[in-house]
Amino acid sequence: MKIFDIPGFPNPLRIRIVLAEKGLGSQIEFSKIDLLAAEHKQPAFLEINPLGTVPVLQLDDGTNISECTAITEYLDNLDGNPILTGKTPKEKAIIHMMQKRAESELADPVGYYFHHATPGLGAALQPYKSPEWEGRIEWGNRQRDKAVAGMHYFDQLLRSQPYIAGEQFSMADITVYAGLIFAGFASIAIPNQCSALLAWQAKVQQRPSVKNPA
Amino acid sequence: MKIFDIPGFPNPLRIRIVLAEKGLGSQIEFSKIDLLAAEHKQPAFLEINPLGTVPVLQLDDGTNISECTAITEYLDNLDGNPILTGKTPKEKAIIHMMQKRAESELADPVGYYFHHATPGLGAALQPYKSPEWEGRIEWGNRQRDKAVAGMHYFDQLLRSQPYIAGEQFSMADITVYAGLIFAGFASIAIPNQCSALLAWQAKVQQRPSVKNPA
Repeated sequence: MKIFDIPGFPNPLRIRIVLAEKGLGSQIEFSKIDLLAAEHKQPAFLEINPLGTVPVLQLDDGTNISECTAITEYLDNLDGNPILTGKTPKEKAIIHMMQKRAESELADPVGYYFHHATPGLGAALQPYKSPEWEGRIEWGNRQRDKAVAGMHYFDQLLRSQPYIAGEQFSMADITVYAGLIFAGFASIAIPNQCSALLAWQAKVQQRPSVKNPA
Repeated sequence: MKIFDIPGFPNPLRIRIVLAEKGLGSQIEFSKIDLLAAEHKQPAFLEINPLGTVPVLQLDDGTNISECTAITEYLDNLDGNPILTGKTPKEKAIIHMMQKRAESELADPVGYYFHHATPGLGAALQPYKSPEWEGRIEWGNRQRDKAVAGMHYFDQLLRSQPYIAGEQFSMADITVYAGLIFAGFASIAIPNQCSALLAWQAKVQQRPSVKNPA
């Protein structure tokens, strides 16, 4: 299997943590995409993923899988022992619900803020991310506020359970963790009052898969 | 099991089609939420779903599941025979990838356009959907254009395969179908050139689950 990504970026990190959790890192060939030169928005890469996002998992039969949830479903189910996406219908449902919330309430708004209300990743990418339009700064700032509200939401949740989807670590934890890394990169601080979220973050940082992602 | 929703709206429809596909309609008690009065944004409903969206599936043990993907995972896996979310790792991956694209490229932008650049669902809901801010009409209109681009994307895809995720009907088809219903409600027409998408829509309309959702 092959993965097109760029090390250190939030969504690529999600999948590299998944790979480490599943012990699959050695089975992957990584192909680095030059994100800052907008390589993922050029025709050659759009053949691989028409939406122009990384990471993409390319299976040995040539099938290209984009979107972190989809890639995680694949990798987690390969050995018939899904430890990150749930085994029972109820586990699957709660993990997918929290995965979606991790994106809609934290990771996505951070990204919108970063790409609309800050210089983002620079000149080459700007045309793909935020065309000039009246009000984009205000919209971006609203998304930053939404991300901070999301931090408070997850903080509240973590006051009564150890992980984002309940008792066990799951892909939803990985998504929140990567969302917080992205927030730090975009200079959105975790409020000090979010002590449960901060304690959870410190605990997740100690996982072998997070200390040494693929 | 209980579902909080409102008949006829796009996301509730998605789950009612799932219920019909799985033959589970008779096992559900429906509780109607007064969306136009913003009942789903009031404290009582926010206890059920802090994000204030419908539908929500309430399990017999009291667990509340929101987000259509999560609800579909639950209902589809209950009988151990997932016909909508995939059986193999590769099927799961492709269906989740296309489910995400159905949301990000069609259903979500239609919703953003409807709630930001049109009167939306009226006065009671407006404060929750689109606070007044400079540029919201332009942003909404950009989302409309994105939704139309999404229609062209799915049209292109359907020129070489019968369903959104490949050879078989899946939850991704349901999401695109509901997205097109929402588009119609928001007066975003499917371009005439999208003949494969229009033919697919006509085919899906003939499914028993779509003709008679739960």
